[in-house]
Amino acid sequence: MPAARAYAIDSPTGLFHPTTIARREPGPTEVLFDIKFAGICHSDIHTARGEWGPAIYPLVPGHEIAGVVTQVGDKVTKFKVGDRVGVGCFVDSCGHCDLCDAGTEQFCEEAIYTYNDHGRDGKPTEGGYSTAFTVEQNYLCHIPDSIPLDAAAPLLCAGITLYSPLKRWGAGPGKQVAILGMGGLGHMGVKIAAAMGAEVSVISQTRAKEADGLAFGASHYYAMSEPDTLKGLKKHFDLIISTVAASTNVTPYVECLKVGGALVDVGLPENASTIEFDSLVLGNRILAGSQIGGIAETQEMLDFCAAHGVAPQIEVISAADINDAYEKVVHSQVRYRYVIDVATI
Amino acid sequence: MPAARAYAIDSPTGLFHPTTIARREPGPTEVLFDIKFAGICHSDIHTARGEWGPAIYPLVPGHEIAGVVTQVGDKVTKFKVGDRVGVGCFVDSCGHCDLCDAGTEQFCEEAIYTYNDHGRDGKPTEGGYSTAFTVEQNYLCHIPDSIPLDAAAPLLCAGITLYSPLKRWGAGPGKQVAILGMGGLGHMGVKIAAAMGAEVSVISQTRAKEADGLAFGASHYYAMSEPDTLKGLKKHFDLIISTVAASTNVTPYVECLKVGGALVDVGLPENASTIEFDSLVLGNRILAGSQIGGIAETQEMLDFCAAHGVAPQIEVISAADINDAYEKVVHSQVRYRYVIDVATI
Repeated sequence: MPAARAYAIDSPTGLFHPTTIARREPGPTEVLFDIKFAGICHSDIHTARGEWGPAIYPLVPGHEIAGVVTQVGDKVTKFKVGDRVGVGCFVDSCGHCDLCDAGTEQFCEEAIYTYNDHGRDGKPTEGGYSTAFTVEQNYLCHIPDSIPLDAAAPLLCAGITLYSPLKRWGAGPGKQVAILGMGGLGHMGVKIAAAMGAEVSVISQTRAKEADGLAFGASHYYAMSEPDTLKGLKKHFDLIISTVAASTNVTPYVECLKVGGALVDVGLPENASTIEFDSLVLGNRILAGSQIGGIAETQEMLDFCAAHGVAPQIEVISAADINDAYEKVVHSQVRYRYVIDVATI
Repeated sequence: MPAARAYAIDSPTGLFHPTTIARREPGPTEVLFDIKFAGICHSDIHTARGEWGPAIYPLVPGHEIAGVVTQVGDKVTKFKVGDRVGVGCFVDSCGHCDLCDAGTEQFCEEAIYTYNDHGRDGKPTEGGYSTAFTVEQNYLCHIPDSIPLDAAAPLLCAGITLYSPLKRWGAGPGKQVAILGMGGLGHMGVKIAAAMGAEVSVISQTRAKEADGLAFGASHYYAMSEPDTLKGLKKHFDLIISTVAASTNVTPYVECLKVGGALVDVGLPENASTIEFDSLVLGNRILAGSQIGGIAETQEMLDFCAAHGVAPQIEVISAADINDAYEKVVHSQVRYRYVIDVATI
């Protein structure tokens, strides 16, 4: 079995340390690839620290994975050695239910997540903080040549998380789109919505990231720290994407939607939020949620980003700095996504 | 000016009493009609009692209005004397904004509501608890011959309130649709959703109305008073329409939606409700609001009800019984909509 170097954490309060893990020998329809870069997603931190329930330790997180194919099974048709490839949040599903047929494999009852889950072999899945990965070809994406592998990695989660709702809910020319929060997810939303042709606004806590937001493609920047920010934006937006994982009363935001507009949340606040239903009723408005995207849509997103020159703003770090990076992510000090250079593992 | 007999209320704590009001002489594009029947909507009660803010007294409520044309302006093309017609919740709008162009005149900034509003002449609008009505032809609907006028009246509000979200959110063959609450609105939802071909469930507080629900077209009836009702319905519905105007934690209902499913609220609870966003995100689910419908859609609804033999379950009352009827509506004792016989005014 192919061995891989990895960084693992052993308990909710532990620190990441180097280790060695075994990857599957690729089956007939599987692909083995060398991981080159792995993004650090805030959800890695929630999982590693047991904030979303007990994790499977030792845990190797990472679901923003970019690399190069080194071996393919004899029935693999979609990939060849040397291909630039990416894996996102899940690595398998049943492949034949309505949800899989609809291209929403992420919701399949048998979906297997990239780490902190169990594979078909019953063994814990281990993610991208490692040097190699084995995966069924149907759950692997091609990374277009024009996207550097380090920048490609965060697209596999942060990119698709924003692309899917922006597309589903109609971001495009003539549409006013707001992105709430401008962190790892939000900054991708600004770039993708602008590339789709929408007029983009950022609504952030402060103006600290205003110059960045405008450089990423936003036309307007609003700060909640200033008085009456939302009052000036009533009935203004066709679409608001909230990347803020904090419980709140969303009514003032919903009231910033035009008739028929949608506020789509992609964050996972720990506690319940509140909503006054008349803000929805008196305007046929929509509050929706969105979770990543299926494989075909993820490939579509990668191709879209290549065609439009969209890539995340990243800071490449060494594996030894993962513990430090986690602290900085928690304190919103990252600009805007840490990506581990897997050669340093 | 044409005079009309009416029933009015003079204060939030007053009682309805007979009175006389003046209707406009119909202008060139206006229609004058004799009201035959007027439904009592719960929103009449909220308005009359000042529960939605100060009302304009003396108040003549009623926005579920059915009658017969007696006079038309010389440029009226859509109606002639003797036509059976209906008016719903609004009687005018600007006619040329994006919202009017989209057939959603109810949201036009200049929409004029049927009562408790001011007309273009600056005078208070007065509703259907009266014997005659003058209205612009573009805000009047034809009532198909097969629908009795008494049964037609509640369609103009309760009917369109349920038809619009059921159609917008995909009720039809192969779809599991639940109606929350089986009052004046809910029972119309059961009938219309069943006529659309959906498999309909009612979720009510108790089984008191179960036989009615099944007779109206529901296939399943669930009572919240029984333990674990919702636990058995996880991921079960494509669409849930909530007619319950009560603040609640909607998360357990949202979790009864399939992936991509929608819970659409048409009620107006006084206070905020709560929602755990992960129930939306982890299933791409939707929470939406819906308010009545535009004129073209209201006509479409009337034609649909005629084609499918759908009519509300009504109790026809005399105008002298309005005060008593209000009490019964508030205490959920109506089966399922009171309609005033305007001949008794």
